[in-house]
Amino acid sequence: MHPGDANYKHPDRPQEKITGRASGNNRIKQKSTTNSQFPSSSKANYLLPFDILGGRSHSEWYFYSMIILDGRVASKAIKEKLSNDVKVLVSKGERPPHLAAILVGKDPASEFYVSSKVKSCEETGFKSTLVKYEDVSEDDLIEKIVELNKDETVDGILVQLPLPRHISSKNIISAIDPEKDVDGFHPVNAGNLMLGNESYLPATPYGIMLLLEHYKLDIKGKHAVVIGRSNIVGRPISILLSNNTHPGNATVTLTHSQTADLGKICADADIIVAAIGKPGFVKAHMVKDGAIVIDVGINRVDDDSPKGYKITGDVDYENVAPKTSYITPVPGGVGLMTIAALLKNTLKSRLLRI
Amino acid sequence: MHPGDANYKHPDRPQEKITGRASGNNRIKQKSTTNSQFPSSSKANYLLPFDILGGRSHSEWYFYSMIILDGRVASKAIKEKLSNDVKVLVSKGERPPHLAAILVGKDPASEFYVSSKVKSCEETGFKSTLVKYEDVSEDDLIEKIVELNKDETVDGILVQLPLPRHISSKNIISAIDPEKDVDGFHPVNAGNLMLGNESYLPATPYGIMLLLEHYKLDIKGKHAVVIGRSNIVGRPISILLSNNTHPGNATVTLTHSQTADLGKICADADIIVAAIGKPGFVKAHMVKDGAIVIDVGINRVDDDSPKGYKITGDVDYENVAPKTSYITPVPGGVGLMTIAALLKNTLKSRLLRI
Repeated sequence: MHPGDANYKHPDRPQEKITGRASGNNRIKQKSTTNSQFPSSSKANYLLPFDILGGRSHSEWYFYSMIILDGRVASKAIKEKLSNDVKVLVSKGERPPHLAAILVGKDPASEFYVSSKVKSCEETGFKSTLVKYEDVSEDDLIEKIVELNKDETVDGILVQLPLPRHISSKNIISAIDPEKDVDGFHPVNAGNLMLGNESYLPATPYGIMLLLEHYKLDIKGKHAVVIGRSNIVGRPISILLSNNTHPGNATVTLTHSQTADLGKICADADIIVAAIGKPGFVKAHMVKDGAIVIDVGINRVDDDSPKGYKITGDVDYENVAPKTSYITPVPGGVGLMTIAALLKNTLKSRLLRI
Repeated sequence: MHPGDANYKHPDRPQEKITGRASGNNRIKQKSTTNSQFPSSSKANYLLPFDILGGRSHSEWYFYSMIILDGRVASKAIKEKLSNDVKVLVSKGERPPHLAAILVGKDPASEFYVSSKVKSCEETGFKSTLVKYEDVSEDDLIEKIVELNKDETVDGILVQLPLPRHISSKNIISAIDPEKDVDGFHPVNAGNLMLGNESYLPATPYGIMLLLEHYKLDIKGKHAVVIGRSNIVGRPISILLSNNTHPGNATVTLTHSQTADLGKICADADIIVAAIGKPGFVKAHMVKDGAIVIDVGINRVDDDSPKGYKITGDVDYENVAPKTSYITPVPGGVGLMTIAALLKNTLKSRLLRI
């Protein structure tokens, strides 16, 4: 049985290719069939009435296999579209979009993220400028931002976080012109997001929405549980999922460190968004059969590999994935979407500047 | 048994005065006792383990009576404090806070709200200016707002909503200086609310938080269900309840017109905030025994009274109230807190201007 809405289908996936998958402790037999009668209810109808089941009993019902929400596939599709848009722009004699990225310090993770963004700019025909400081004062950094704000050839400004302790992220973000704030962290953009107005959406939550859109997942009326209330992911994604948009219109519960009985709340969810920064935090018993699981975690965990570490998400993927209808891998999931979203914001800013 | 946390006590209410009240279909016997062993769990522990019950069985356990969260009492206390603060300010040779209210058109409800606000200003020693238009163009209204923005003797500007159709509320609100936006509707204030920064909180959600504070209700870890996702109440209160503040730190589910199984979600809630604008929408079966119910609705319902109507909330008060631990009446609840919150914002703006 399909766990949710009839629209929850991979666009490229033929209806006939239905395979068995784990459902709690029960393995369901593999069988090919078409299931056009899936009810479009917002509940995960694991106990459908007999008539909806077409006269078959529950034990005879069949499952879709788990589908990976592949950030590589979705971000590639978005970047190809962006690349074409830039070509059209340039063919009309306009300059390409230009992203200015600022990196302070030598944090290896930050260096990796910024260089990924710069590389993605190159791949899609965007211009990028990387401003690197070994160290810098808050005043000098603000001065640089003011300069970039005034520079009419710059469309987007991003300051890679976290910043060193002596610099207030809040002051830095507030200094960015909201119309160039392609990371969507400025209070004006946060406010417009909250109010459902046009804004630059923060890149990670926007990336998640783009992923849902790419896989044509209709989340209307579904119960989404967001784990983590950070300003960068948890809070904004909880708003975007519940706004009156498409995708959107989910019923959202935002959970956090003070939440009681998190496991029970998660186990009721049709959709789980894990953004808590704890490797393997979401265990199989916290996930309902057929749920959609979005893993935002990017955690570095020591291992015996030559690198000495591996990147893992906030979800115990190995045990959770077989229970889900859709799940994002880490790496290769939300992280790549974040960059695609950033580029989309930068192109939008470029087009608004013509 | 007390439905929630040991801290959930009216500050002025002696512990000994415990009276029976309705619990679902069962009436619990009245008995005086002190209950220092109430568990500080965030779940509504209606089925406590036997040992926590001190050896008594569930049927021997006792209930607090329902307590009215009285907006008259709480707003009076806040206004008395504001009044004193203004006296101190004036005694130092400073001018009192000054609220400028703008009313467009002749909607009786809007006229009533604005005149209540002006009257409250008078009562607390605030200066107020009422700018009334029978009709006005958007441009002329914006011009007036710009004038008030520049006027250094004005601390707060509020435009009574709704506005006539030919005027864009969004444009009008955006025209108000965020530092004088004591209604807290400007995107900058919305964004700072969302980000947990200092801001002018929108008056109704802020009023609800002040009411929780007045009655010293600790909502940390409780499950709050907000009904309605408006920018004026539902969305911001869902954020305030879940922010890492005190009161705050609740686990919040925001529900709306697309929510499936609303009754079931509400019936699990420790706290319900009804802000949907439908008279008597929240029925007894949707409310858990011992829940806290905040009724934001102000609905005009026709009746046989000389006035021809009565004001009712979004909650079926008569049937719901006996099940709750705390409930706001309508009128006399959240509405009065809204005005107190507005005055608090205006005083804050005045103090920041010195």
